[in-house]
Amino acid sequence: MDMKKYALVMAGGKGERFWPWSRSSEPKQFLTLTGRRSLIQQTWDRLQKFFSPENIFVATGQSFVSLVHKHLPRLPENNILVEPVGRNTAPCIGLAALRLQKIDPQAIMLVLPADHLVTNKKVFQQCLEQCLRLAERGESLITIGIKPTRPETGYGYIEKREMPLNEKNGVYHIKQFVEKPDLEKAQEYLAKGNFYWNSGIFAWRTELILAKIQKYLPDLYHGLKEIEPFMGTPLEKEALEKLFPGLPSVSIDYGIMEKEKNILMVQGDFGWDDLGSWTSLAKQFREEGRDNVSKGQHLGIATKDCLVYAEDTLVATLGVSDLVIVQSNGVVLVCSMERAQQVKDLVGELKTKGLEQYL
Amino acid sequence: MDMKKYALVMAGGKGERFWPWSRSSEPKQFLTLTGRRSLIQQTWDRLQKFFSPENIFVATGQSFVSLVHKHLPRLPENNILVEPVGRNTAPCIGLAALRLQKIDPQAIMLVLPADHLVTNKKVFQQCLEQCLRLAERGESLITIGIKPTRPETGYGYIEKREMPLNEKNGVYHIKQFVEKPDLEKAQEYLAKGNFYWNSGIFAWRTELILAKIQKYLPDLYHGLKEIEPFMGTPLEKEALEKLFPGLPSVSIDYGIMEKEKNILMVQGDFGWDDLGSWTSLAKQFREEGRDNVSKGQHLGIATKDCLVYAEDTLVATLGVSDLVIVQSNGVVLVCSMERAQQVKDLVGELKTKGLEQYL
Repeated sequence: MDMKKYALVMAGGKGERFWPWSRSSEPKQFLTLTGRRSLIQQTWDRLQKFFSPENIFVATGQSFVSLVHKHLPRLPENNILVEPVGRNTAPCIGLAALRLQKIDPQAIMLVLPADHLVTNKKVFQQCLEQCLRLAERGESLITIGIKPTRPETGYGYIEKREMPLNEKNGVYHIKQFVEKPDLEKAQEYLAKGNFYWNSGIFAWRTELILAKIQKYLPDLYHGLKEIEPFMGTPLEKEALEKLFPGLPSVSIDYGIMEKEKNILMVQGDFGWDDLGSWTSLAKQFREEGRDNVSKGQHLGIATKDCLVYAEDTLVATLGVSDLVIVQSNGVVLVCSMERAQQVKDLVGELKTKGLEQYL
Repeated sequence: MDMKKYALVMAGGKGERFWPWSRSSEPKQFLTLTGRRSLIQQTWDRLQKFFSPENIFVATGQSFVSLVHKHLPRLPENNILVEPVGRNTAPCIGLAALRLQKIDPQAIMLVLPADHLVTNKKVFQQCLEQCLRLAERGESLITIGIKPTRPETGYGYIEKREMPLNEKNGVYHIKQFVEKPDLEKAQEYLAKGNFYWNSGIFAWRTELILAKIQKYLPDLYHGLKEIEPFMGTPLEKEALEKLFPGLPSVSIDYGIMEKEKNILMVQGDFGWDDLGSWTSLAKQFREEGRDNVSKGQHLGIATKDCLVYAEDTLVATLGVSDLVIVQSNGVVLVCSMERAQQVKDLVGELKTKGLEQYL
């Protein structure tokens, strides 16, 4: 059975929400935000129980290939799927499914982002085991839902049905996937109790997800089929460069999960955060019991609830609160905690103004 | 008459309130905050109408002597009074008075800080002329009071008597000098209308101020008299180094002006600010019609009423207001506008923590 399971680690993120810490040359998945291993390394470590290095694939952009090798030296060279351009998650997952299908038509595929935080590795692995077992049946798409602890507006949600498939093991039929809500809706979801955070972790047989792509995203399916004959041949790279950019840019959530009804959700309770912004990082640190979160040389007087990252200068603060202050790579960012999710607006503005040297 | 008038420019300030822009090696008086000339150069320029370079003296600390020469190349070398240590304004003024007394027993002495902002040079000079004329009489200490435009808590105040000496020329007997008030008191002063800002600009005959020092600060007078025999001799420097540190550290305001009753105030209406903190600098800039005040590379989204100074990095701001953000000399300061007057607390804290490399 071990032969048939593969993991696809999605590591294509540009990490704009952590700018300027994650400049475009080193996005979030390669940063060591907690502990001593980078996020992609921690993801790799968590997979070792179920997947040998040969069975782990990493999808990323051309410019990050050498970083992936550096962070994951045991990953076989051929196990990197290079996306010539970013086309969101559905084309990436579809391409990987085709690739695995060629290796093993019965392949089971785990899909997970490279840059999430998991606090309890053991519980995570128990949950993963369940997902893989359910996926093996080949009947449903499987996903992990996280019990929400706050009315988070930065995540998508999954509404579960009341009747569980297996309540003891925390497996439920789902009612619907819903997009990131506004605060009011998020509070409603939290109060209702049957809404879970969409973790972005999925498991399925490759043949099943390809069938769903064919059903819900026929254009994508058609495009993938054009690429398929070249896969594993010397022309693969050229074919990808020519054909991948023409694939529709669509997320697996929007393109498949929001439309498909036959989805099972495994409840995950392993301390999860997608670390989507400075705010969530600050939250994470605060749960570790700190007041201000400082890395580097920080001197604060009358300073409260601030996240301060000082790479190579002193950051001094006086009479401020709820700020994210980041000094890194020749840039200083000062941002209110509540606006930290919009840091990518600054990145966009820099592009507009031709100030690419700061990206 | 021109022979008897001298100006003492006090340039000993360490400029801690503008840290980190003004590191201890280059305090505020040497910064070019407005226009193209440094503050001490602007002060020099304003004095040219009444004082030849030979009649201008500059008091400063040993470490700033070369900066003074650099900024004021026409100042004769012997016209720098070097204070071996800072002992506030009264000892400095007393020492200068003794020095001038030796040159001319009838000397009239103008005392003014090196680092204030004056918007209307012509009106300033008219006011100065009046002060010098009144000082010449040798009857009273003369000072300039600034009509307040806001309930400023960063300045000392002068309460004038109702009966003017010369209302037409804006000359009044004073009732009292008062220390920096709290906000409530400052609002009261502003409403009353007979309170003026203490500009720190004074004029008097040297013999008169020395008599007042003898009366109100006998310890200081005694100490100065010990130094006097060495003044102008090859032993002057040694005598100062030995005896000056023993002088009582006291301001002319607290030591003399708050006690003496025979003081005349000339009303000054020439656009004045002591630029005592980032806040007052921001105010000054805002009066020039700007919303955010930025120098250097600043990118702001949803940013209001901020003072941003970026020396050699990009400063990006998002969703913040009323902040002072200064990137300079390997330090980043982020401070609320209302706390900007307390930046010297940070400087003190750095000293306490042995982080002198950032001062």
